[in-house]
Amino acid sequence: VGAVVLDVSVSLDGFATGPDARPGVPLGDGGVRLHEWMFADSGQRARREGAADIDQAVVAELFATTGAVVMGRRMFDLGVAEWGGTPFPVPCFVVTHHGREDLVTDNGTFHFFTDGAASALARARAAAGDKNVLVHSPNIARQLLRAGLVDEIHLHLVPILLGGGGRLFDGTEMAGLRFEPVALKQSARVAHLRYRVRPGPSAEGAD
Amino acid sequence: VGAVVLDVSVSLDGFATGPDARPGVPLGDGGVRLHEWMFADSGQRARREGAADIDQAVVAELFATTGAVVMGRRMFDLGVAEWGGTPFPVPCFVVTHHGREDLVTDNGTFHFFTDGAASALARARAAAGDKNVLVHSPNIARQLLRAGLVDEIHLHLVPILLGGGGRLFDGTEMAGLRFEPVALKQSARVAHLRYRVRPGPSAEGAD
Repeated sequence: VGAVVLDVSVSLDGFATGPDARPGVPLGDGGVRLHEWMFADSGQRARREGAADIDQAVVAELFATTGAVVMGRRMFDLGVAEWGGTPFPVPCFVVTHHGREDLVTDNGTFHFFTDGAASALARARAAAGDKNVLVHSPNIARQLLRAGLVDEIHLHLVPILLGGGGRLFDGTEMAGLRFEPVALKQSARVAHLRYRVRPGPSAEGAD
Repeated sequence: VGAVVLDVSVSLDGFATGPDARPGVPLGDGGVRLHEWMFADSGQRARREGAADIDQAVVAELFATTGAVVMGRRMFDLGVAEWGGTPFPVPCFVVTHHGREDLVTDNGTFHFFTDGAASALARARAAAGDKNVLVHSPNIARQLLRAGLVDEIHLHLVPILLGGGGRLFDGTEMAGLRFEPVALKQSARVAHLRYRVRPGPSAEGAD
């Protein structure tokens, strides 16, 4: 059975988006630099050094293992314009306050749920079958992490400093989680780190 | 010739110390967990898994390659009580506002400099010879990074969340630096990441 995976690129100073995210600049100032490693045509120098092979293998595995996506409404609003459809060719489950009809695109279908992240996740798991559910919005990811519903975090640590923006981890409410390193790969540009998420001692104590 | 190295353990949420650092709790709440990987006797389970071999090799290399240490006055005040001497058996150069006589310990000698971090670093480089100068205080490290005087950053990424404390990177003043990954090792507990520090495009543009 598949895992629930948070897959996110972060800067060396811990930001998943750059400062001042706004319409037209959805990832904030400099935020697109977090995702350049995903695009084969973006790093001539890195490709010469063989880095693109590792990075492209990571991207290919992400596409091959993802069976459904969960995201928030804000990501949907920003993303549809950006991607022209679903970010992966699989069903996408959008957590929103305002229900609407399914949106069918060339790439896949968006489904909208108004009863919370856990409920959207349950539907996504059913749709994903043996594949993984990818959690695609940091704020949805934080809700699911707090609820103990995320199995793995795949961090792509990009060696840049953004100096501000949206942090993946913010505040103390997740301090009880335990992260077990399960794998790591380094290209010439990015460290790809994987952790299994477990309730830690303090979280167990709180139950 | 040796390099100027910032060697620091950070949590997954980017903190080099935990929240509420205070006398008696110099690393803040939970901050000691950042350094447990350095002590061979702290991880029975990790040792069974062979992790301690990697972690202990990293520590051994740190001791073997360090020829001098630069630190701030606050680290000195906290550290002398903690270490009972210099943190490494090499000369230590303390950046302070209040000059004082050299302090000789069983481990090494502390020298005090009132004319700034760059000046203390120059003395440390001379003392280190072919070995590295270790920058041991995050605030001194930030000053030297901004001045372009740090050659490498060795990050030990510990998969815990501290939820607050002192950040290694804070603010935008270092956004122009470029970090080139040079090596990485993963134990069962910690990802050891090394970056060469270069002035980036924006820093070059500003000169």
